[in-house]
Amino acid sequence: MLGTHADLVVEAGDDCAVCRLPGTELDQVFTTDPVIEGVHFERGEVPERVGNKAVGRVLSDIAAMGAQPQWILVNVAAPPELEFQYLEKIYAGMSALCERFGAVIIGGDLAKGDTLELHVFGTGLLPEKAARLRSGARAGDDLLVTGPLGGSFASGRHLDFTPRVPEGIFLRESGLVNAMMDVSDGLATDLRHILSRSGVGAALSGAEIPVNGTLEQALYDGEDFELLLTSPAAPELQKQWRAAFGTDLPIIGKITENPGLLELDGEIIEAKAFEHFASE
Amino acid sequence: MLGTHADLVVEAGDDCAVCRLPGTELDQVFTTDPVIEGVHFERGEVPERVGNKAVGRVLSDIAAMGAQPQWILVNVAAPPELEFQYLEKIYAGMSALCERFGAVIIGGDLAKGDTLELHVFGTGLLPEKAARLRSGARAGDDLLVTGPLGGSFASGRHLDFTPRVPEGIFLRESGLVNAMMDVSDGLATDLRHILSRSGVGAALSGAEIPVNGTLEQALYDGEDFELLLTSPAAPELQKQWRAAFGTDLPIIGKITENPGLLELDGEIIEAKAFEHFASE
Repeated sequence: MLGTHADLVVEAGDDCAVCRLPGTELDQVFTTDPVIEGVHFERGEVPERVGNKAVGRVLSDIAAMGAQPQWILVNVAAPPELEFQYLEKIYAGMSALCERFGAVIIGGDLAKGDTLELHVFGTGLLPEKAARLRSGARAGDDLLVTGPLGGSFASGRHLDFTPRVPEGIFLRESGLVNAMMDVSDGLATDLRHILSRSGVGAALSGAEIPVNGTLEQALYDGEDFELLLTSPAAPELQKQWRAAFGTDLPIIGKITENPGLLELDGEIIEAKAFEHFASE
Repeated sequence: MLGTHADLVVEAGDDCAVCRLPGTELDQVFTTDPVIEGVHFERGEVPERVGNKAVGRVLSDIAAMGAQPQWILVNVAAPPELEFQYLEKIYAGMSALCERFGAVIIGGDLAKGDTLELHVFGTGLLPEKAARLRSGARAGDDLLVTGPLGGSFASGRHLDFTPRVPEGIFLRESGLVNAMMDVSDGLATDLRHILSRSGVGAALSGAEIPVNGTLEQALYDGEDFELLLTSPAAPELQKQWRAAFGTDLPIIGKITENPGLLELDGEIIEAKAFEHFASE
Protein backbone atom coordinates (compact mmCIF):
# COMPACT_ATOMS: atom_id res chain seq x y z
CA MET A 1 0.00 0.00 0.00
CA LEU A 2 3.05 2.25 0.03
CA GLY A 3 4.25 4.30 -2.90
CA THR A 4 7.58 4.42 -4.68
CA HIS A 5 9.77 7.30 -5.81
CA ALA A 6 13.37 7.69 -6.97
CA ASP A 7 14.26 9.69 -3.83
CA LEU A 8 12.74 7.08 -1.50
CA VAL A 9 15.74 5.06 -0.31
CA VAL A 10 14.18 2.85 2.35
CA GLU A 11 10.45 2.26 2.61
CA ALA A 12 8.50 1.81 5.80
CA GLY A 13 9.19 -1.49 7.48
CA ASP A 14 12.41 -0.19 8.93
CA ASP A 15 12.31 2.07 12.01
CA CYS A 16 12.04 5.07 9.67
CA ALA A 17 11.54 5.70 5.97
CA VAL A 18 14.72 7.14 4.45
CA CYS A 19 14.59 9.70 1.63
CA ARG A 20 17.37 11.35 -0.32
CA LEU A 21 17.43 15.14 0.12
CA PRO A 22 17.92 16.38 -3.44
CA GLY A 23 20.82 18.78 -3.94
CA THR A 24 22.51 17.78 -0.68
CA GLU A 25 24.74 15.03 0.70
CA LEU A 26 22.08 14.28 3.31
CA ASP A 27 19.31 11.74 3.76
CA GLN A 28 16.18 12.61 5.70
CA VAL A 29 14.35 10.05 7.84
CA PHE A 30 10.62 10.07 8.65
CA THR A 31 8.62 8.23 11.25
CA THR A 32 5.33 8.41 13.09
CA ASP A 33 3.97 6.74 16.22
CA PRO A 34 0.63 6.76 17.98
CA VAL A 35 0.26 6.88 21.75
CA ILE A 36 -3.30 6.01 22.73
CA GLU A 37 -5.04 6.04 26.10
CA GLY A 38 -5.91 2.51 27.19
CA VAL A 39 -3.33 1.02 24.80
CA HIS A 40 -0.04 2.82 25.48
CA PHE A 41 -0.91 4.48 28.79
CA GLU A 42 -3.73 4.36 31.33
CA ARG A 43 -6.31 7.10 31.87
CA GLY A 44 -5.16 9.58 34.51
CA GLU A 45 -1.44 8.93 33.93
CA VAL A 46 0.92 11.77 34.85
CA PRO A 47 0.66 13.95 31.71
CA GLU A 48 4.36 14.80 31.46
CA ARG A 49 5.11 11.06 31.31
CA VAL A 50 2.57 10.59 28.51
CA GLY A 51 4.31 13.39 26.60
CA ASN A 52 7.72 11.87 27.24
CA LYS A 53 6.58 8.54 25.85
CA ALA A 54 4.84 10.04 22.81
CA VAL A 55 7.91 11.95 21.64
CA GLY A 56 10.34 9.34 23.00
CA ARG A 57 8.99 6.60 20.72
CA VAL A 58 9.59 8.79 17.68
CA LEU A 59 13.06 9.92 18.79
CA SER A 60 13.92 6.26 19.44
CA ASP A 61 13.00 5.36 15.85
CA ILE A 62 15.18 8.22 14.58
CA ALA A 63 18.03 7.13 16.88
CA ALA A 64 17.76 3.59 15.51
CA MET A 65 18.74 4.90 12.06
CA GLY A 66 21.68 6.82 13.55
CA ALA A 67 20.08 10.16 12.63
CA GLN A 68 19.92 13.54 14.35
CA PRO A 69 16.30 14.42 15.27
CA GLN A 70 15.02 17.54 13.54
CA TRP A 71 11.31 18.47 13.39
CA ILE A 72 8.32 17.13 15.37
CA LEU A 73 4.59 17.62 14.68
CA VAL A 74 1.88 16.38 17.04
CA ASN A 75 -1.77 15.63 16.34
CA VAL A 76 -3.90 15.37 19.45
CA ALA A 77 -7.40 13.94 19.55
CA ALA A 78 -9.02 14.58 22.92
CA PRO A 79 -12.45 14.27 24.52
CA PRO A 80 -14.01 17.75 24.95
CA GLU A 81 -14.22 17.29 28.74
CA LEU A 82 -10.45 16.85 29.09
CA GLU A 83 -8.88 19.75 30.99
CA PHE A 84 -6.73 21.95 28.82
CA GLN A 85 -4.17 22.08 31.62
CA TYR A 86 -3.68 18.32 31.25
CA LEU A 87 -2.86 18.79 27.57
CA GLU A 88 -0.46 21.63 28.40
CA LYS A 89 1.42 19.31 30.74
CA ILE A 90 1.63 16.65 28.02
CA TYR A 91 3.16 19.31 25.76
CA ALA A 92 5.58 20.24 28.54
CA GLY A 93 6.74 16.62 28.69
CA MET A 94 7.12 16.49 24.92
CA SER A 95 8.97 19.81 24.75
CA ALA A 96 11.39 18.85 27.52
CA LEU A 97 12.44 15.69 25.69
CA CYS A 98 12.69 17.50 22.34
CA GLU A 99 14.93 20.19 23.82
CA ARG A 100 17.23 17.59 25.31
CA PHE A 101 17.94 16.08 21.90
CA GLY A 102 17.82 19.07 19.56
CA ALA A 103 14.34 18.40 18.16
CA VAL A 104 11.74 21.17 17.77
CA ILE A 105 7.93 20.90 17.83
CA ILE A 106 6.86 22.96 14.81
CA GLY A 107 3.16 22.22 14.49
CA GLY A 108 0.26 19.84 14.73
CA ASP A 109 -3.46 19.88 15.23
CA LEU A 110 -5.98 19.47 18.05
CA ALA A 111 -9.28 17.73 17.33
CA LYS A 112 -12.22 16.30 19.21
CA GLY A 113 -12.13 12.51 19.70
CA ASP A 114 -13.61 9.87 22.01
CA THR A 115 -10.24 8.83 23.41
CA LEU A 116 -7.08 10.80 24.14
CA GLU A 117 -4.67 10.02 21.31
CA LEU A 118 -1.33 11.55 20.42
CA HIS A 119 0.05 11.01 16.92
CA VAL A 120 3.63 12.19 16.72
CA PHE A 121 5.49 12.70 13.46
CA GLY A 122 9.24 13.23 13.34
CA THR A 123 12.07 13.83 10.92
CA GLY A 124 15.83 13.47 11.23
CA LEU A 125 18.96 14.06 9.18
CA LEU A 126 22.10 12.05 8.54
CA PRO A 127 24.77 11.74 5.82
CA GLU A 128 23.49 10.09 2.64
CA LYS A 129 23.56 6.28 2.58
CA ALA A 130 24.66 6.24 6.24
CA ALA A 131 21.36 5.06 7.79
CA ARG A 132 21.74 1.83 9.75
CA LEU A 133 19.03 -0.58 8.59
CA ARG A 134 17.44 -3.81 9.76
CA SER A 135 18.66 -5.41 6.54
CA GLY A 136 22.37 -4.90 7.19
CA ALA A 137 23.22 -7.91 9.40
CA ARG A 138 25.82 -10.37 8.09
CA ALA A 139 26.58 -13.93 9.26
CA GLY A 140 29.45 -13.74 11.74
CA ASP A 141 28.42 -10.35 13.16
CA ASP A 142 28.15 -10.09 16.91
CA LEU A 143 24.80 -8.99 18.33
CA LEU A 144 24.89 -6.21 20.95
CA VAL A 145 22.39 -4.18 22.96
CA THR A 146 22.73 -0.75 24.58
CA GLY A 147 21.00 -1.57 27.88
CA PRO A 148 18.90 -3.97 29.94
CA LEU A 149 15.65 -5.40 28.55
CA GLY A 150 12.33 -6.49 30.11
CA GLY A 151 9.93 -5.30 32.79
CA SER A 152 9.34 -1.96 31.12
CA PHE A 153 5.57 -1.97 31.67
CA ALA A 154 5.73 -3.31 35.22
CA SER A 155 8.30 -0.71 36.28
CA GLY A 156 6.69 2.21 34.46
CA ARG A 157 9.90 2.69 32.49
CA HIS A 158 7.86 2.52 29.25
CA LEU A 159 6.76 6.08 30.11
CA ASP A 160 10.03 7.49 31.45
CA PHE A 161 12.61 5.97 29.12
CA THR A 162 15.31 8.00 27.42
CA PRO A 163 15.64 7.48 23.67
CA ARG A 164 19.21 6.53 22.71
CA VAL A 165 19.81 9.50 20.42
CA PRO A 166 23.52 10.30 21.00
CA GLU A 167 24.19 6.56 21.25
CA GLY A 168 22.57 5.93 17.86
CA ILE A 169 24.59 8.71 16.22
CA PHE A 170 27.78 7.44 17.87
CA LEU A 171 27.14 3.88 16.68
CA ARG A 172 26.45 5.03 13.10
CA GLU A 173 29.54 7.26 13.08
CA SER A 174 31.74 4.42 14.38
CA GLY A 175 31.45 2.72 11.00
CA LEU A 176 31.42 -0.58 12.91
CA VAL A 177 27.66 -1.28 12.89
CA ASN A 178 25.99 -3.33 10.15
CA ALA A 179 22.35 -3.43 11.32
CA MET A 180 20.47 -1.46 13.98
CA MET A 181 16.91 -1.09 15.32
CA ASP A 182 15.23 -0.16 18.56
CA VAL A 183 13.69 -2.79 20.84
CA SER A 184 10.02 -1.86 21.12
CA ASP A 185 8.25 -5.23 20.88
CA GLY A 186 10.70 -7.39 22.87
CA LEU A 187 14.07 -8.81 21.89
CA ALA A 188 12.74 -12.08 20.37
CA THR A 189 10.14 -10.30 18.23
CA ASP A 190 12.33 -7.42 17.09
CA LEU A 191 15.37 -9.55 16.35
CA ARG A 192 13.20 -11.52 13.92
CA HIS A 193 12.79 -8.33 11.87
CA ILE A 194 16.57 -8.13 11.49
CA LEU A 195 16.73 -11.83 10.59
CA SER A 196 14.01 -11.68 7.95
CA ARG A 197 15.25 -8.45 6.38
CA SER A 198 18.88 -9.57 6.40
CA GLY A 199 18.26 -13.21 5.42
CA VAL A 200 20.24 -14.50 8.39
CA GLY A 201 19.72 -16.29 11.72
CA ALA A 202 20.84 -15.53 15.26
CA ALA A 203 22.10 -17.49 18.26
CA LEU A 204 21.47 -15.75 21.59
CA SER A 205 23.42 -16.44 24.78
CA GLY A 206 20.87 -16.21 27.58
CA ALA A 207 23.46 -15.53 30.25
CA GLU A 208 24.81 -12.51 28.37
CA ILE A 209 21.48 -10.70 27.86
CA PRO A 210 21.18 -7.82 30.34
CA VAL A 211 17.77 -8.12 31.96
CA ASN A 212 15.39 -6.19 34.15
CA GLY A 213 13.58 -9.14 35.70
CA THR A 214 13.57 -12.51 33.95
CA LEU A 215 15.01 -13.64 30.63
CA GLU A 216 11.44 -14.33 29.49
CA GLN A 217 10.58 -10.69 30.12
CA ALA A 218 13.64 -9.51 28.19
CA LEU A 219 12.57 -11.63 25.24
CA TYR A 220 8.89 -10.71 25.14
CA ASP A 221 7.88 -7.67 27.25
CA GLY A 222 8.73 -4.92 24.78
CA GLU A 223 8.84 -1.12 25.13
CA ASP A 224 12.51 -1.14 26.20
CA PHE A 225 13.66 1.38 23.57
CA GLU A 226 17.26 0.22 23.79
CA LEU A 227 19.18 -0.16 20.52
CA LEU A 228 19.86 -3.64 19.15
CA LEU A 229 22.75 -3.81 16.70
CA THR A 230 25.12 -6.12 14.86
CA SER A 231 28.83 -5.49 14.39
CA PRO A 232 31.62 -7.22 12.49
CA ALA A 233 34.14 -5.68 14.94
CA ALA A 234 32.46 -5.86 18.33
CA PRO A 235 35.58 -5.73 20.56
CA GLU A 236 36.77 -2.49 18.92
CA LEU A 237 33.25 -1.06 19.09
CA GLN A 238 32.97 -1.99 22.79
CA LYS A 239 36.28 -0.21 23.45
CA GLN A 240 35.14 2.97 21.72
CA TRP A 241 31.75 2.78 23.45
CA ARG A 242 33.34 2.50 26.92
CA ALA A 243 35.55 5.50 26.15
CA ALA A 244 32.52 7.54 25.03
CA PHE A 245 29.83 6.51 27.53
CA GLY A 246 31.69 4.80 30.40
CA THR A 247 29.35 1.79 30.28
CA ASP A 248 29.38 -1.69 28.77
CA LEU A 249 27.92 -2.60 25.39
CA PRO A 250 27.28 -6.31 25.95
CA ILE A 251 27.55 -8.95 23.22
CA ILE A 252 24.39 -11.06 23.58
CA GLY A 253 24.76 -13.43 20.64
CA LYS A 254 25.93 -13.97 17.11
CA ILE A 255 24.42 -13.68 13.64
CA THR A 256 24.35 -17.09 11.86
CA GLU A 257 23.86 -18.26 8.30
CA ASN A 258 20.48 -19.97 8.96
CA PRO A 259 17.78 -17.70 7.46
CA GLY A 260 15.09 -16.85 10.01
CA LEU A 261 16.36 -19.29 12.62
CA LEU A 262 16.45 -17.86 16.15
CA GLU A 263 18.29 -19.92 18.77
CA LEU A 264 18.69 -19.36 22.51
CA ASP A 265 21.49 -21.36 24.15
CA GLY A 266 21.29 -23.91 21.33
CA GLU A 267 17.48 -24.35 21.39
CA ILE A 268 15.26 -23.01 18.62
CA ILE A 269 12.71 -20.47 19.86
CA GLU A 270 9.49 -19.98 17.95
CA ALA A 271 7.76 -16.70 17.16
CA LYS A 272 5.34 -15.41 19.80
CA ALA A 273 3.19 -12.46 18.84
CA PHE A 274 3.43 -9.29 20.86
CA GLU A 275 -0.01 -8.03 21.80
CA HIS A 276 -0.55 -5.37 19.16
CA PHE A 277 -3.38 -4.77 16.71
CA ALA A 278 -0.65 -4.48 14.07
CA SER A 279 2.88 -3.43 14.65
CA GLU A 280 6.13 -2.78 12.90
CA MET B 1 3.93 25.54 23.25
CA LEU B 2 5.95 25.40 20.05
CA GLY B 3 9.71 25.45 19.84
CA THR B 4 12.09 27.74 18.01
CA HIS B 5 15.11 27.08 15.84
CA ALA B 6 17.22 29.10 13.40
CA ASP B 7 16.00 26.97 10.45
CA LEU B 8 12.33 27.38 11.41
CA VAL B 9 11.09 30.15 9.08
CA VAL B 10 7.36 30.12 9.77
CA GLU B 11 5.84 28.52 12.83
CA ALA B 12 2.51 26.72 12.97
CA GLY B 13 -0.43 29.07 12.68
CA ASP B 14 -0.02 29.30 8.94
CA ASP B 15 -1.30 26.45 6.75
CA CYS B 16 2.10 24.77 7.13
CA ALA B 17 5.26 25.27 9.15
CA VAL B 18 8.12 26.36 6.86
CA CYS B 19 11.71 25.28 7.51
CA ARG B 20 14.91 26.15 5.70
CA LEU B 21 16.61 23.12 4.15
CA PRO B 22 20.24 23.63 5.09
CA GLY B 23 22.71 23.47 2.22
CA THR B 24 20.03 24.04 -0.42
CA GLU B 25 18.04 26.87 -1.96
CA LEU B 26 14.84 25.15 -0.86
CA ASP B 27 12.37 25.50 1.99
CA GLN B 28 10.43 22.49 3.25
CA VAL B 29 6.85 22.77 4.52
CA PHE B 30 5.21 20.49 7.10
CA THR B 31 1.60 19.98 8.04
CA THR B 32 -0.66 17.47 9.72
CA ASP B 33 -4.43 16.97 9.79
CA PRO B 34 -6.72 14.55 11.60
CA VAL B 35 -9.79 12.98 9.98
CA ILE B 36 -11.99 11.43 12.65
CA GLU B 37 -15.15 9.33 12.36
CA GLY B 38 -18.13 11.24 13.71
CA VAL B 39 -16.34 14.58 13.33
CA HIS B 40 -15.03 14.72 9.77
CA PHE B 41 -17.02 11.85 8.26
CA GLU B 42 -19.89 9.57 9.30
CA ARG B 43 -19.56 5.88 10.18
CA GLY B 44 -20.03 3.68 7.11
CA GLU B 45 -18.90 6.37 4.65
CA VAL B 46 -17.48 5.12 1.33
CA PRO B 47 -13.88 4.35 2.35
CA GLU B 48 -12.21 5.76 -0.77
CA ARG B 49 -13.91 9.11 -0.03
CA VAL B 50 -12.59 9.06 3.54
CA GLY B 51 -9.10 8.46 2.15
CA ASN B 52 -9.50 11.26 -0.40
CA LYS B 53 -10.48 13.70 2.33
CA ALA B 54 -7.70 12.63 4.72
CA VAL B 55 -4.93 13.19 2.21
CA GLY B 56 -6.75 16.05 0.46
CA ARG B 57 -6.75 18.22 3.58
CA VAL B 58 -2.97 17.87 3.88
CA LEU B 59 -2.33 18.47 0.17
CA SER B 60 -4.58 21.54 0.39
CA ASP B 61 -2.43 22.97 3.20
CA ILE B 62 0.70 22.34 1.13
CA ALA B 63 -0.96 23.92 -1.93
CA ALA B 64 -1.83 26.99 0.15
CA MET B 65 1.89 27.67 0.63
CA GLY B 66 2.53 27.26 -3.09
CA ALA B 67 4.62 24.12 -2.48
CA GLN B 68 5.01 20.82 -4.34
CA PRO B 69 3.77 17.91 -2.20
CA GLN B 70 6.48 15.40 -1.35
CA TRP B 71 6.09 12.76 1.38
CA ILE B 72 2.99 11.53 3.24
CA LEU B 73 2.79 9.39 6.40
CA VAL B 74 -0.48 8.09 7.81
CA ASN B 75 -1.29 6.96 11.33
CA VAL B 76 -4.51 4.97 11.58
CA ALA B 77 -6.29 4.17 14.83
CA ALA B 78 -9.08 1.67 14.24
CA PRO B 79 -11.45 -0.48 16.32
CA PRO B 80 -10.34 -4.14 16.17
CA GLU B 81 -13.68 -5.19 14.64
CA LEU B 82 -13.20 -2.95 11.59
CA GLU B 83 -12.76 -5.00 8.40
CA PHE B 84 -9.26 -4.83 7.02
CA GLN B 85 -10.75 -4.49 3.53
CA TYR B 86 -12.34 -1.20 4.58
CA LEU B 87 -8.91 0.12 5.60
CA GLU B 88 -7.42 -1.08 2.31
CA LYS B 89 -10.01 0.93 0.42
CA ILE B 90 -9.21 4.03 2.49
CA TYR B 91 -5.56 3.55 1.49
CA ALA B 92 -6.63 3.17 -2.14
CA GLY B 93 -8.38 6.56 -1.92
CA MET B 94 -5.33 8.14 -0.31
CA SER B 95 -2.92 6.60 -2.83
CA ALA B 96 -4.98 7.70 -5.82
CA LEU B 97 -4.93 11.33 -4.69
CA CYS B 98 -1.22 11.20 -3.85
CA GLU B 99 -0.35 9.83 -7.27
CA ARG B 100 -2.31 12.55 -8.97
CA PHE B 101 -0.21 15.26 -7.34
CA GLY B 102 3.24 13.67 -7.09
CA ALA B 103 3.04 12.81 -3.39
CA VAL B 104 4.16 9.42 -2.05
CA ILE B 105 2.93 7.58 1.06
CA ILE B 106 6.16 6.42 2.70
CA GLY B 107 5.03 5.11 6.06
CA GLY B 108 2.77 5.32 9.07
CA ASP B 109 1.41 3.13 11.80
CA LEU B 110 -1.74 1.16 12.56
CA ALA B 111 -2.98 0.99 16.14
CA LYS B 112 -6.05 -0.11 18.06
CA GLY B 113 -8.44 2.70 19.04
CA ASP B 114 -12.09 3.17 19.97
CA THR B 115 -12.87 5.31 16.92
CA LEU B 116 -11.56 5.21 13.38
CA GLU B 117 -9.05 8.07 13.10
CA LEU B 118 -6.64 8.97 10.35
CA HIS B 119 -3.76 11.30 11.15
CA VAL B 120 -2.01 12.38 7.98
CA PHE B 121 1.38 14.12 7.93
CA GLY B 122 2.76 15.73 4.81
CA THR B 123 5.79 17.58 3.56
CA GLY B 124 6.38 19.76 0.51
CA LEU B 125 9.17 21.66 -1.18
CA LEU B 126 9.46 25.12 -2.71
CA PRO B 127 12.20 27.69 -3.40
CA GLU B 128 13.51 29.38 -0.25
CA LYS B 129 11.54 32.38 1.00
CA ALA B 130 8.88 31.76 -1.68
CA ALA B 131 6.12 30.40 0.59
CA ARG B 132 2.92 32.44 0.40
CA LEU B 133 1.83 33.25 3.95
CA ARG B 134 -1.27 34.51 5.73
CA SER B 135 0.78 37.51 6.86
CA GLY B 136 1.53 38.86 3.38
CA ALA B 137 -1.63 40.89 2.63
CA ARG B 138 -1.19 44.64 2.01
CA ALA B 139 -3.84 47.40 1.98
CA GLY B 140 -4.94 47.94 -1.61
CA ASP B 141 -4.53 44.28 -2.60
CA ASP B 142 -7.45 42.66 -4.32
CA LEU B 143 -8.91 39.53 -2.70
CA LEU B 144 -9.50 36.54 -4.98
CA VAL B 145 -10.71 32.94 -4.65
CA THR B 146 -10.07 29.92 -6.87
CA GLY B 147 -13.62 28.52 -6.85
CA PRO B 148 -17.12 28.57 -5.37
CA LEU B 149 -17.66 28.41 -1.60
CA GLY B 150 -20.39 26.97 0.64
CA GLY B 151 -22.55 23.87 0.85
CA SER B 152 -19.58 21.52 1.03
CA PHE B 153 -21.04 19.34 3.79
CA ALA B 154 -24.55 19.26 2.35
CA SER B 155 -23.32 18.25 -1.10
CA GLY B 156 -20.73 15.75 0.11
CA ARG B 157 -18.04 17.76 -1.65
CA HIS B 158 -16.08 17.90 1.65
CA LEU B 159 -15.17 14.26 0.91
CA ASP B 160 -14.60 14.45 -2.85
CA PHE B 161 -12.84 17.79 -3.25
CA THR B 162 -9.67 18.24 -5.26
CA PRO B 163 -6.84 20.09 -3.49
CA ARG B 164 -5.62 23.06 -5.56
CA VAL B 165 -2.04 21.83 -5.92
CA PRO B 166 -1.08 22.99 -9.44
CA GLU B 167 -3.09 26.16 -8.85
CA GLY B 168 -1.15 26.95 -5.66
CA ILE B 169 2.19 26.42 -7.39
CA PHE B 170 1.05 28.54 -10.35
CA LEU B 171 -0.08 31.35 -8.05
CA ARG B 172 3.21 31.32 -6.11
CA GLU B 173 5.27 31.23 -9.32
CA SER B 174 3.30 34.17 -10.78
CA GLY B 175 5.02 36.49 -8.31
CA LEU B 176 1.70 38.37 -8.14
CA VAL B 177 0.34 36.92 -4.87
CA ASN B 178 0.98 38.56 -1.48
CA ALA B 179 -0.99 36.29 0.88
CA MET B 180 -2.56 32.88 0.42
CA MET B 181 -4.39 30.24 2.48
CA ASP B 182 -6.97 27.51 1.92
CA VAL B 183 -10.61 27.96 2.91
CA SER B 184 -11.32 25.19 5.39
CA ASP B 185 -13.43 26.94 8.05
CA GLY B 186 -15.51 29.26 5.83
CA LEU B 187 -14.57 32.49 4.08
CA ALA B 188 -15.45 34.82 6.98
CA THR B 189 -13.51 32.79 9.52
CA ASP B 190 -10.46 32.10 7.38
CA LEU B 191 -10.19 35.63 6.02
CA ARG B 192 -9.89 36.83 9.62
CA HIS B 193 -6.65 34.83 9.90
CA ILE B 194 -5.20 36.81 6.99
CA LEU B 195 -6.44 40.07 8.54
CA SER B 196 -4.98 39.42 11.97
CA ARG B 197 -1.65 38.11 10.69
CA SER B 198 -1.28 40.89 8.13
CA GLY B 199 -2.62 43.73 10.32
CA VAL B 200 -5.15 44.76 7.70
CA GLY B 201 -8.90 44.74 7.07
CA ALA B 202 -11.04 43.55 4.16
CA ALA B 203 -14.14 44.73 2.32
CA LEU B 204 -16.05 41.91 0.60
CA SER B 205 -18.45 42.40 -2.31
CA GLY B 206 -21.25 39.91 -1.72
CA ALA B 207 -22.33 39.84 -5.34
CA GLU B 208 -18.85 38.88 -6.51
CA ILE B 209 -18.36 35.88 -4.19
CA PRO B 210 -18.88 32.63 -6.14
CA VAL B 211 -21.27 30.51 -4.09
CA ASN B 212 -22.64 26.99 -3.91
CA GLY B 213 -25.93 27.79 -2.23
CA THR B 214 -26.34 31.00 -0.24
CA LEU B 215 -23.89 33.78 0.62
CA GLU B 216 -24.33 32.81 4.29
CA GLN B 217 -23.11 29.31 3.44
CA ALA B 218 -20.11 30.67 1.54
CA LEU B 219 -19.17 32.75 4.56
CA TYR B 220 -19.60 30.11 7.26
CA ASP B 221 -19.94 26.51 6.01
CA GLY B 222 -16.25 25.64 5.64
CA GLU B 223 -14.47 22.63 4.10
CA ASP B 224 -14.34 24.24 0.64
CA PHE B 225 -10.59 23.79 0.18
CA GLU B 226 -10.39 26.52 -2.42
CA LEU B 227 -7.46 28.95 -2.22
CA LEU B 228 -8.05 32.48 -0.91
CA LEU B 229 -5.38 34.98 -1.98
CA THR B 230 -4.52 38.66 -2.21
CA SER B 231 -2.80 40.31 -5.15
CA PRO B 232 -1.45 43.78 -5.88
CA ALA B 233 -1.91 43.10 -9.62
CA ALA B 234 -5.18 41.20 -9.91
CA PRO B 235 -6.05 41.98 -13.55
CA GLU B 236 -2.68 40.66 -14.77
CA LEU B 237 -3.00 37.62 -12.50
CA GLN B 238 -6.53 36.94 -13.80
CA LYS B 239 -5.22 37.10 -17.37
CA GLN B 240 -2.42 34.61 -16.66
CA TRP B 241 -4.84 32.37 -14.73
CA ARG B 242 -7.32 32.24 -17.62
CA ALA B 243 -4.50 31.35 -20.02
CA ALA B 244 -3.34 28.55 -17.72
CA PHE B 245 -6.61 27.06 -16.46
CA GLY B 246 -9.33 28.42 -18.80
CA THR B 247 -11.48 29.54 -15.88
CA ASP B 248 -12.13 32.76 -13.98
CA LEU B 249 -10.31 33.86 -10.85
CA PRO B 250 -12.90 36.19 -9.35
CA ILE B 251 -12.06 39.30 -7.34
CA ILE B 252 -14.35 39.16 -4.28
CA GLY B 253 -13.16 42.18 -2.34
CA LYS B 254 -10.30 44.42 -1.34
CA ILE B 255 -7.77 44.57 1.49
CA THR B 256 -8.19 47.77 3.55
CA GLU B 257 -6.12 49.66 6.10
CA ASN B 258 -8.48 48.96 9.04
CA PRO B 259 -6.80 46.30 11.18
CA GLY B 260 -9.10 43.33 11.82
CA LEU B 261 -12.16 44.99 10.33
CA LEU B 262 -14.18 42.73 8.02
CA GLU B 263 -16.89 44.41 5.93
CA LEU B 264 -19.47 42.94 3.57
CA ASP B 265 -21.11 45.43 1.18
CA GLY B 266 -20.26 48.25 3.58
CA GLU B 267 -21.57 46.54 6.76
CA ILE B 268 -19.24 45.27 9.46
CA ILE B 269 -19.55 41.52 10.05
CA GLU B 270 -18.64 40.07 13.41
CA ALA B 271 -16.71 36.88 14.10
CA LYS B 272 -18.79 33.69 14.30
CA ALA B 273 -17.03 30.59 15.51
CA PHE B 274 -16.91 27.56 13.30
CA GLU B 275 -17.92 24.43 15.19
CA HIS B 276 -14.53 22.93 16.01
CA PHE B 277 -12.99 21.75 19.26
CA ALA B 278 -10.01 23.83 18.25
CA SER B 279 -8.99 24.66 14.76
CA GLU B 280 -6.36 26.42 12.74
